[in-house]
Amino acid sequence: MVKHLKIGLLGLGVVGSGVVQVIAKNSEKIFSTTGIKLEVVKALVRAKEEKQALASEYGFSLVHDSEDIMNDPEIDIVVEVMGKIEPAKTFISAALNKGKHVVSANKDLIAQYGNELVALAQQNGCYFYYEASVAGGIPILRTLVTSFLADEITEIFGIVNGTTNYMLTQMVKHHLSYEDSLKQAQKLGFAESDPTNDVDGIDAAYKAVILTRFAFQQDLGMNDFTIQGIREMDLADLELAQRLGYEVKLIARIKNSITGVYADVAPKLIPQHHPLASVSDELNGVFVKSKGIGESMFYGPGAGSLPTATSVVNDLAVIAQRTNQDLPTTPFIEYKKQVNLQKKANVTGRFYLALKAQTKAQIAKMMEILAKAELGLELVEQKQTNASRFVYLTKSITLAQRDEVVAELTKAAIQVTQTMEILEE
Amino acid sequence: MVKHLKIGLLGLGVVGSGVVQVIAKNSEKIFSTTGIKLEVVKALVRAKEEKQALASEYGFSLVHDSEDIMNDPEIDIVVEVMGKIEPAKTFISAALNKGKHVVSANKDLIAQYGNELVALAQQNGCYFYYEASVAGGIPILRTLVTSFLADEITEIFGIVNGTTNYMLTQMVKHHLSYEDSLKQAQKLGFAESDPTNDVDGIDAAYKAVILTRFAFQQDLGMNDFTIQGIREMDLADLELAQRLGYEVKLIARIKNSITGVYADVAPKLIPQHHPLASVSDELNGVFVKSKGIGESMFYGPGAGSLPTATSVVNDLAVIAQRTNQDLPTTPFIEYKKQVNLQKKANVTGRFYLALKAQTKAQIAKMMEILAKAELGLELVEQKQTNASRFVYLTKSITLAQRDEVVAELTKAAIQVTQTMEILEE
Repeated sequence: MVKHLKIGLLGLGVVGSGVVQVIAKNSEKIFSTTGIKLEVVKALVRAKEEKQALASEYGFSLVHDSEDIMNDPEIDIVVEVMGKIEPAKTFISAALNKGKHVVSANKDLIAQYGNELVALAQQNGCYFYYEASVAGGIPILRTLVTSFLADEITEIFGIVNGTTNYMLTQMVKHHLSYEDSLKQAQKLGFAESDPTNDVDGIDAAYKAVILTRFAFQQDLGMNDFTIQGIREMDLADLELAQRLGYEVKLIARIKNSITGVYADVAPKLIPQHHPLASVSDELNGVFVKSKGIGESMFYGPGAGSLPTATSVVNDLAVIAQRTNQDLPTTPFIEYKKQVNLQKKANVTGRFYLALKAQTKAQIAKMMEILAKAELGLELVEQKQTNASRFVYLTKSITLAQRDEVVAELTKAAIQVTQTMEILEE
Repeated sequence: MVKHLKIGLLGLGVVGSGVVQVIAKNSEKIFSTTGIKLEVVKALVRAKEEKQALASEYGFSLVHDSEDIMNDPEIDIVVEVMGKIEPAKTFISAALNKGKHVVSANKDLIAQYGNELVALAQQNGCYFYYEASVAGGIPILRTLVTSFLADEITEIFGIVNGTTNYMLTQMVKHHLSYEDSLKQAQKLGFAESDPTNDVDGIDAAYKAVILTRFAFQQDLGMNDFTIQGIREMDLADLELAQRLGYEVKLIARIKNSITGVYADVAPKLIPQHHPLASVSDELNGVFVKSKGIGESMFYGPGAGSLPTATSVVNDLAVIAQRTNQDLPTTPFIEYKKQVNLQKKANVTGRFYLALKAQTKAQIAKMMEILAKAELGLELVEQKQTNASRFVYLTKSITLAQRDEVVAELTKAAIQVTQTMEILEE
């Protein structure tokens, strides 16, 4: 007798429809590898009419009430692809409490309420997988679990937000302003009408919270991240960076050492021959530094219906495989190490500083502040338009030093229009 | 009581010593994740004296006779890091016949005799893992097993030989001839005194044989590969390629479709903004095209003591984890699909053709042959030194067409100094 695992979908948007199709398309392969047939039996939708054709084609039923899925004893796995915190959180909790395994692609939820849901999954002996929540189609989470067992990761950083990477790429490629690149991203569906989560670095930070659990077994809160988005990004800085041999990318990074963990999301200058520099448009890349392997990178699509759905269905296939072998339901990752935050005085980096001074007196004051700060500055641009623009690269300084000089400059009414870290090799 | 798995090492060179150190360094982490302590108890060496210090430091004994490992009922896992076919093959077979799990980094052996050893492992209920055999520290094989369950790979290609990648990178970076870059690679230990396996593409083909099993579940022989190395590489071609917007890389590639599989190893032109183009020096990168995820890439060190050893120890940790959970000893991958080779008439590509003609009559003949062949040529270089050099790019043609025109030119005594495929986006 062929064994089946029956699936209830919460949401049938682009990812949900993708899940239906990916399961159908790879049904034979999944069966031959796992010994299990995956079968979508129900999907929760708001408006049944527009999804009826899909449901009929693939032979599942549409429901309006989540209880129709939660109370269906035939359903083994619930796939949550609705996004947002509520009602997703309530639904996932209900599913786990009913003993159903859960697969989700919801990074906001997993970053903020992961602990609660992971605990609930363990209590109920359920799998709770969410590979698709970070970097969409890139198999990064499971790879961190299975291929770094004998290694110690020291730093993980990458481009994990496709929207902002698309915008930054378009700005330099087509000489667009921030506003124009945002409009274009919105037109093409890469950015939402309210782009806050993407352009302010919040989405990248959610993903970095999850990455930290897998790379360092530590659980950071969003408040533990220093977050700087790209809303203030000036094309002039991107172009100057390019002339200096760098590409600007919005980077989420977590560095770990015995003295503590430091995590930030910020636009940074990446040397043009670094593999992350060639991760362009909406693509994502995650770079891992470790004591054993050294440097490795994982590259692919960070979003999109098909890549995300494929990642979700891979999670389903792993559940199928383990279920068929009667394996214990171990958690995706254990992350219970104590968090020890690094002090800013202990974190160093080189920086790109773009400044604007309006008057000669301001310029003099700026020079005075900079001289006193001893940042080992190299002037890379000086321009006189309506205001005077100066761009400097610093030597390696501490974050505390950087914050101090930025504060002093700001106090003296000198505009710090951009500060970005320069990543070394 | 703490459970141990005891390890016998075959070979204690750079990788073997690395394995000892990586186990020692990550012992706690491996224990906390797998519930098992890994312990090296014996190592087979030729000369005991030079390894005695290491053995004493890490508390294992040195043996001269492989039987001391095979007949030791305490040893659970044998790690083969000797390289070459024999006596590695005999030793691995003996270990499997004694019911010992085996981890190996030996691509030559696994590419050529993998089937036999895999069958032996299954008969004896043993694990036989070899993640380190392809692309050293890059976790590509296990990732193909665990993260492409719901996907269909159509093409896999990459830079899997560090030696030749180092040489090609150095040639363009420092304007070196092939000979000088080889000497430098040999001096730095990246190339052996007999570089045949590397520069003639054989090593890359071994790895591609293994990749084909994991990506397509098909078992190609070395004869199924079209192999072209870099021995004939001229700096002028590398530099011209760069001016045209490409980097030349030695690429192992396997394309699969319903009409058949086509596999080759050859230097190819990679667009400079393609992620593989930035894989330089001794690094490796494997690019995967699939119907679900789309395009993904896995990048890292292709060799080196520590990365390779880390990959070997990760295999050990996976065995430990599965053993501790009493899981069935499933094979690393099943690859029993029928091989259906693609005809050259069905494979298309654009090509870079560098030609040399000695006389006006030859040039005229060359023009005649090229005109008749209808290759949609674009002339990108024409140079008159002691002979006339012409470089053309073709439109998309079949391999059969390419072979035909090369044969005709050669017959007319026109030197075809280089043909390389141009990879598109």
